[in-house]
Amino acid sequence: MRLNDPDMMVQVARCADAYEEALGRNDMPALDALFWSGPEAVRYGVGENLYGAEAIAAFRRARAGGSPPREVLRRHIVCVNETMAVVSLEFRRIGGTAIGRQMQTWIRGEVGWRILAAHVSIMAERPETDS
Amino acid sequence: MRLNDPDMMVQVARCADAYEEALGRNDMPALDALFWSGPEAVRYGVGENLYGAEAIAAFRRARAGGSPPREVLRRHIVCVNETMAVVSLEFRRIGGTAIGRQMQTWIRGEVGWRILAAHVSIMAERPETDS
Repeated sequence: MRLNDPDMMVQVARCADAYEEALGRNDMPALDALFWSGPEAVRYGVGENLYGAEAIAAFRRARAGGSPPREVLRRHIVCVNETMAVVSLEFRRIGGTAIGRQMQTWIRGEVGWRILAAHVSIMAERPETDS
Repeated sequence: MRLNDPDMMVQVARCADAYEEALGRNDMPALDALFWSGPEAVRYGVGENLYGAEAIAAFRRARAGGSPPREVLRRHIVCVNETMAVVSLEFRRIGGTAIGRQMQTWIRGEVGWRILAAHVSIMAERPETDS
């Protein structure tokens, strides 16, 4: 296993950029195409849990205005090998203060890199070490 | 790419069971050992964002009493191939009502299956399609 091969890092960074841009312009065909197209795809969003590409695509169409505009604060990419990578990022919605997090597992098949699994959430105000 | 090979599904389900059991008894050495041991590991928790195995291990030790007891409501495993899988689950903390979500990307190296990336969150009360 050779983590973080430089060529793969470039490829995956471009995919992550493309996703962020498609999200920003609420480009639903582009967002659909960047997700794995089968029933195995899963997306945990801020307020919903979606299983399968169809449910994910339907959610996008039901969300008026798309994803709220956001600023990416930090991005962390790990390329496992030539076919698997994880993209994690922290964001803040424009005008908001809370920290959001997005984690995506990308896999590369014959049609290129696709998001197999994603989890988006808003971080709680206090760490769980506070009690 | 052959998704969800039956033998791999059994292996990964056992790993996920082992993680859940270790979490339940707050077995820190076991939890540490189930995570990838390098700086590439990432864990987004309910209230904290942790980068690298050292930060993740330190968090476990700073969290008095460990992870709150929970009931797993649904588990969804996708095995990409012999070296990568994603385990997604929904849970409810005992005595609580909110739905929690945990997503883990597992990779298999020479030492066996390890969690490279994890994201745990509490779902918002309303889906983002409500406005």
